[in-house]
Amino acid sequence: MLGKYLDNVREKAPLVHNITNYVTVNDVANVLLACGGSPIMADDLREVEEITSICGGLNINIGTLNSYTIESMLQAGYKANELKHATLLDPVGAGASKLRTNTAEHLLQEIQFDVIRGNISEIKTLAVGTGTTKGVDADEADTVTEENLEAMVTFTKHFARNKKCIVAITGAIDLVADSNKCYVIRNGRAEMSKITGTGCQLSGMITAFLVANPQEKLEATVAAVAAMGLAGEIAFTYMQEGDGNTTYRNRIIDAIYNMDGKTLEEGANYEVR
Amino acid sequence: MLGKYLDNVREKAPLVHNITNYVTVNDVANVLLACGGSPIMADDLREVEEITSICGGLNINIGTLNSYTIESMLQAGYKANELKHATLLDPVGAGASKLRTNTAEHLLQEIQFDVIRGNISEIKTLAVGTGTTKGVDADEADTVTEENLEAMVTFTKHFARNKKCIVAITGAIDLVADSNKCYVIRNGRAEMSKITGTGCQLSGMITAFLVANPQEKLEATVAAVAAMGLAGEIAFTYMQEGDGNTTYRNRIIDAIYNMDGKTLEEGANYEVR
Amino acid sequence: MLGKYLDNVREKAPLVHNITNYVTVNDVANVLLACGGSPIMADDLREVEEITSICGGLNINIGTLNSYTIESMLQAGYKANELKHATLLDPVGAGASKLRTNTAEHLLQEIQFDVIRGNISEIKTLAVGTGTTKGVDADEADTVTEENLEAMVTFTKHFARNKKCIVAITGAIDLVADSNKCYVIRNGRAEMSKITGTGCQLSGMITAFLVANPQEKLEATVAAVAAMGLAGEIAFTYMQEGDGNTTYRNRIIDAIYNMDGKTLEEGANYEVR
Repeated sequence: MLGKYLDNVREKAPLVHNITNYVTVNDVANVLLACGGSPIMADDLREVEEITSICGGLNINIGTLNSYTIESMLQAGYKANELKHATLLDPVGAGASKLRTNTAEHLLQEIQFDVIRGNISEIKTLAVGTGTTKGVDADEADTVTEENLEAMVTFTKHFARNKKCIVAITGAIDLVADSNKCYVIRNGRAEMSKITGTGCQLSGMITAFLVANPQEKLEATVAAVAAMGLAGEIAFTYMQEGDGNTTYRNRIIDAIYNMDGKTLEEGANYEVR
Repeated sequence: MLGKYLDNVREKAPLVHNITNYVTVNDVANVLLACGGSPIMADDLREVEEITSICGGLNINIGTLNSYTIESMLQAGYKANELKHATLLDPVGAGASKLRTNTAEHLLQEIQFDVIRGNISEIKTLAVGTGTTKGVDADEADTVTEENLEAMVTFTKHFARNKKCIVAITGAIDLVADSNKCYVIRNGRAEMSKITGTGCQLSGMITAFLVANPQEKLEATVAAVAAMGLAGEIAFTYMQEGDGNTTYRNRIIDAIYNMDGKTLEEGANYEVR
Repeated sequence: MLGKYLDNVREKAPLVHNITNYVTVNDVANVLLACGGSPIMADDLREVEEITSICGGLNINIGTLNSYTIESMLQAGYKANELKHATLLDPVGAGASKLRTNTAEHLLQEIQFDVIRGNISEIKTLAVGTGTTKGVDADEADTVTEENLEAMVTFTKHFARNKKCIVAITGAIDLVADSNKCYVIRNGRAEMSKITGTGCQLSGMITAFLVANPQEKLEATVAAVAAMGLAGEIAFTYMQEGDGNTTYRNRIIDAIYNMDGKTLEEGANYEVR
């Protein structure tokens, strides 16, 4: 079922406006090109509305937020909502500072996002204010496991209902839910956590999938999440002696570049709860 | 003929001041090192004149422009002109927002550039105000083809005459012209458009070639453009199963690193119109 | 002796706050993950104290400093000192502009750093005001050689005594000294100078080593410096035909990722003066 969502991205080549951090921005641009989309990065207040207008989707990532870009995120978000463009929030480091938590909450109040994608600690912070955090990484105490899965599925659906959007919690097990339905995705590898920016890359990619599949946003999000995990699996099969996290990063984007709908269809490992 | 321009870069190791975007900046720095130059990135208003003064060339790229860096671009440009340093403008996304178009036009009014390098849509926007744009990528409707080549050669020369500088339009077919002479370069591969920043990299590299070859700026620009395309061809021969756009990016910079004058001489594919 | 310092990083997974440049920031994040640490980048004035508080160490790098980040560096530094966190200053380009020199000097006056790491030209600028500089690279006239080694050891110890901290001067020969003891490290390869950011990466990594080895900061710094050089040696053994500086960059971070204490122990090449 999921393959067609990737095929649609390759066919429609959606233009995605990214207001994102300067740490992983190059990888976000390259993964958007790899999946068939087209990236543009722009964060000056005087151009973000216009740039968003010519794009199909808006990817907001607060990884290195500052006073100027926060205002740009808001104005771009208002415009994207007005134009009914696809919108995604990646609340990087929510819980690590009040500025990040407050900014993420403020963006959620002001803008209707199609998808919020974060790690479990970031999402817990936004949902119940109690997520712990280890900087921009999830705290192990929060991890989604087979043991707490049923409770986490309920939690994710509940937060999705509350925010009227799709929630994607990514980690060893990924959860993608709207208020009624939760996909549990078991693609990916533990080594992906040793690369900076796989989450940021995924957020960019989800936005492209949303633009290309406007009628089935939940499934499109699931497809992007599964594609990223599957790319991690495929990339790992190409790892050679001496390769480490940086080569793995490159090979993952390469695997997205080479992935077709059929490969995604066959490799995606998920269930619905 | 072109090989010596690369040899001169390796011999003189020109220092290039880059005020550029945060998306592709790392690749720009690495490609400058790869071709034999030395990069410095600095964009604070309080230091740009001083940094430009110790360099031989100034590469201005508006890919993620903002209020602060625009002013820095201007001041650095004034100083570079005063010192008769090599100067290049890369008008990333001109046409995609009024801020970008206006900034590029303002920079062109205030600063005398040696080279303007952009894709066809960006250059059309600056030349006749009618370029369409797909974000930061060229619109297909604008593409330089064998069919419209003669007209595009005339257009490029005319814009070069108008701006009193060298114009480099890069795409499937590259055009590098001053008011009298247009080089048509047919190196490169279509897959290069699936990598973010090959244009930005080329702009950095052209600046280094200008500094190292002050008496023959047109030919030096042609050499840099051909070197980038040839690197794309060489890099492609090293692509293995599973490799994609990110590995291709790495291999292209690697190919520049390993290229000598003789290789460029033999691999450059160009004609004069 | 040095292996255990790396083992401690892998065991304790120190969180490092980086206020660093946008050129090499992605590599800094990936090398921190590669050595077993965890990076967070944050530079807005409203969050830097809080982010520093949840971390174990603070890495300040002035590579693309600006008015806003300079103030953030100061406030983060005050907080780190108050909390007795590990602190490192990387004075990128000190000597290349007054803004850089003055900022580095001001940071040194206001904040007690555990380590200052730079190239010889940057350190000479800060020590005696006479370092020459070639942009962000060391001037050849300043190079540490076997001929001037004894004098340079004395110089390094003297500057360390003066600044009451550890001084790490990296280049073909690396010197790491406190006021009494200077380690001379002869790992690494000349080709590393053709990659942007190996110095920035090392600064991030030293900070992680300091956090994980609070009782033996001098030796921990030596271990990080030797690890980086050794990674350059190991990475070079994996270089294949067609590989250049970008692939070398990737392989170096990969080599850190795969390095264990025993490998560092056996490969480190140093003496004490």
